[in-house]
This record gives sequence, C-alpha cells and structure tokens, in this order.
Amino acid sequence: MPASLLPDTTIINTNARISYVLYLADNALILGHRNSEWCGHGPALEQDIALSNIALDLLGQARHLYQYAAELYNQLNPSAPVTEDHLAYLRDVRDFRNCLLAEQPNGHWGQTVLRQFFFSCWQYYFYQQLQHSNDTQLQAIAIKSLKEVTYHLRWSSEWVIRLGDGTAESKTRMQQAAADLWPYTHELFQPAAFEQEAVSAGYGVTPGSIEKDCLGRIQHIFSEATLSVPVTQPGLHSGGKTGVHTEHLGFILAEMQFLQRAYPGSEW
Amino acid sequence: MPASLLPDTTIINTNARISYVLYLADNALILGHRNSEWCGHGPALEQDIALSNIALDLLGQARHLYQYAAELYNQLNPSAPVTEDHLAYLRDVRDFRNCLLAEQPNGHWGQTVLRQFFFSCWQYYFYQQLQHSNDTQLQAIAIKSLKEVTYHLRWSSEWVIRLGDGTAESKTRMQQAAADLWPYTHELFQPAAFEQEAVSAGYGVTPGSIEKDCLGRIQHIFSEATLSVPVTQPGLHSGGKTGVHTEHLGFILAEMQFLQRAYPGSEW
Repeated sequence: MPASLLPDTTIINTNARISYVLYLADNALILGHRNSEWCGHGPALEQDIALSNIALDLLGQARHLYQYAAELYNQLNPSAPVTEDHLAYLRDVRDFRNCLLAEQPNGHWGQTVLRQFFFSCWQYYFYQQLQHSNDTQLQAIAIKSLKEVTYHLRWSSEWVIRLGDGTAESKTRMQQAAADLWPYTHELFQPAAFEQEAVSAGYGVTPGSIEKDCLGRIQHIFSEATLSVPVTQPGLHSGGKTGVHTEHLGFILAEMQFLQRAYPGSEW
Repeated sequence: MPASLLPDTTIINTNARISYVLYLADNALILGHRNSEWCGHGPALEQDIALSNIALDLLGQARHLYQYAAELYNQLNPSAPVTEDHLAYLRDVRDFRNCLLAEQPNGHWGQTVLRQFFFSCWQYYFYQQLQHSNDTQLQAIAIKSLKEVTYHLRWSSEWVIRLGDGTAESKTRMQQAAADLWPYTHELFQPAAFEQEAVSAGYGVTPGSIEKDCLGRIQHIFSEATLSVPVTQPGLHSGGKTGVHTEHLGFILAEMQFLQRAYPGSEW
C-alpha cells in the first residue's frame, strides 16, 4: 500500500457503481466494527464468540466489497491505484456512505442485538435480490454473504425473542431500544441517487421493494417476543448514504483509522 | 508544518532536558484535553465555562512547553526542525510521558474535580519550586503558570468541599472517587531517570520534596470536606513517565491527533 495516497473522492462520487459498492462495504465495515467493540465484554463466553463471529463475517463481506470497489476505481484511474485498505482507512467521515443504523452506539446487549436484527433483516432481503444482479461480482458476493446473513438473522431473532419475552426489566429495555433505533431503519428503504442509477442499470436492488418483507419479518419476530412494533412518526433520521452522519461515526473512524493514519502503508 | 515529519524519538529519549519538558507538556495537554471533553456538558453554564477555562490554561501551558521542547530539539537536529504541533500530534502513545492521573476518564463531575484537585495540588507546589530553576525558560513558564494553577487549586478545592460536605449521595461518590484516583497520585512523587538528571543539573524539581506539602494540603481540604484521605495500599499505579500507559491514552490520542494524522501539516 503506497503511503498516504488518498482515494480521489471525485472519481467515487461521480461513479454510481463505485458509490453503490462502497455503500454496501461501509455498512458492513461499520457495523462489524461496532460489534467488535463487544469482543471480551459479552454477557457469556459463547455469545461473546457468536457476536465476534458476526463481526468477522461482516468484515469479510466488507473486504470483498472494498476489493471490488478498488478494482472499479483502478480501471478509471490506473495511474494511482488504490487497495481495499485505502478505501477503508483513508476516507474521511463525509465520504462514508453507511446507514446511520450501523454507527449507532452499542448501548446494552439488548440494544446491540436489536440493531443487528434490524440490519440483518434488511441485509437478508437485500442480498436475496442482489443475487439477481446483472453484475456478476455483486451476484457472487450476495450469494456468499447470504449464508452468513441467514445465520445472523436467526441468531439476532432468537435474542430479540428471549429478551422481549423475558423478564419485565428486559422487556422494558427492549421496547425502549426499539423506540430508539426505529427512526434509523427508515433510511435503508429510501433510494439515494446512486441506488436509482444502480436499479436502472440492472445491477442494484430497489430499496423500497424489500420494505414489506422486512416489516413482515419484524412484525412476526416482535409478536413472538411480545413486543410492539414502534409506530413510525415524524423525525426519522437519514443522511448516512450521502455522508451526513451522526456524531458517532467520526469517533469510530478516529479509532479505527489510527494505525494507517499514523503509520501509512503498514501491513501485517 | 512539513507534512508527516515525525519527531525522532531517539533524540528525545537520550536528552533529559527535552524529556523533562515533554513530561510537563504532556501532563498539561492530556489533562487539558480531558477537561475539554466536558465543554457543553457541565452541570451549570458557569461551571462549564470555569472548567473549559482551566482546560484552555492547561493547553496554553502545554504550548509554551512544547515550543520550548521543539527549540531544544531543533538545536540538536537543525536539518529536520519540528514545531509544537509535531510534538503534540505526531508522537505515539509509548512516547507520551504524562502521569497516568491525567489520562483517567472524566467519570462524574465529582471525579473530574477531584482529579483536577489532586493534579493542581501537585502542580502548585511543583511550579513553586520550578520558579527557582536555573533554566530561565522553565523559570518563566513556572512563574506565568503559577497564577493560573493557584486559581485551579482554589476552584477545585471549593468543589471538593462542596461535594464532600454535601449530601449523603455526593459524599459517598467523592469518597469512592478518592479511592479510585488515589493510587494514581503516587507516581507524581517518584522520580523518573530524566527527573534525576534534571535535579542534578539544577533545572528540575525533586519530586519527593513536594510530597509532604501536597499531602498536607489534601488533608486540610479533605478535612473541610469531611472526607477521609485514602490509605495508601499496595497496588499503586505508575509507568506514565516512561510511556507505559493505561488503555485510555491510546483512545485520547486517536481522537486528538486525527486531524493532523488525516491532513498532515494542516493549519488554522
């Protein structure tokens, strides 16, 4: 990795396919990073390992996507090629496209598993459709990732049920977590400009097309968990896809990018 | 500031005077940074501003000290001169010499004011002696800083008394904060190698020589606050002066150094 070579954001922002792949990559990287913060702090060793494995799955998905984004980028700009590391570690906060849900703080264990459930639910239906992308790379990544996401969805669903239909205390906490996170789910179904281009060109998923399936799954699991699905009210949050983030992402990047920023080009 | 020029740690580590000045600078910078985290979050506007002003005083002291350290460094290495910014923003965690007390988390307001009280108490007696340094620069910095530190000590003493001799809840919290922070005060009075050299050469303060005065002041204020001075027990923490820090410092640096790491050489 050449030291301190920054990806050219103009190339990224004017190319819908690169933007699209980075949106998916950033989602996986940032949620994977958040989950990894639990490593060594889970409520039981088995669950600590389960969440760490989900973090690793997401980082693995992020790598495949960043590698593909770098490939697309380098075709347009062969004179200054970048790698997955440049895209993950040398972009600044306004260039990240992840949904705001992914960057929300871990909170308590119930908050974390509910964030995972909402995200996995979206990712599950999203990748199901992305399997039919006319972009063979995206198709392959979707097929591979879907096996992992199916497990993430099952694992997080079981936790939502266990805590929602648990004690009075755990139920109250889960209902509060649902109220806190719900306004961040909406954004996933609202198309950014690069998603509209992706749909037109046949390689992307129409975000709104999976909303009904997602909501149905959430209603089903919440019903088993004896939780109420929050009512959607004004004041929904969005902006992540276009780089307008909550204050949390800057702190995540400061910590996550420190090594490559301080020691440019260092490798394992 | 030339981009991405790192200070040569060999020069710093083999020169006792630079090490000494950086020890004082890092103390002020790191505690100043910690205090600045309260900005906008204080319990009342007046006190928010008071603590922010203390943070600014400490950052001002840090700047004078870093500027002097850079001057000493550049005399030894004129071919690659550094500035205060290089020393503050481009050194890594193992090269920081601040005491562990300065990097401890803010905790609640009482924890923060008690950390400030312990530190200001040490700084007050330390600078009183440093006024007699045979290094005219250190002398001047000590004289200037002492006016500020006198106020910091008065302000933090008043808070310790108010919360210690307050409600049952505030008293319990202060006593717990004292127990938590006490093991970090010891290090300030234990001489590092560079301090021993500084004393021999006549420009430094013997750390142990101010311990009695510090303890007397703490006993006096704790008595007014109806708090017990913690009993010194085995398990005292040290290592900050030689770069062996608690896990907190790395996170502080990641956040504090992000701008200069991401945008080397940027200026206001």
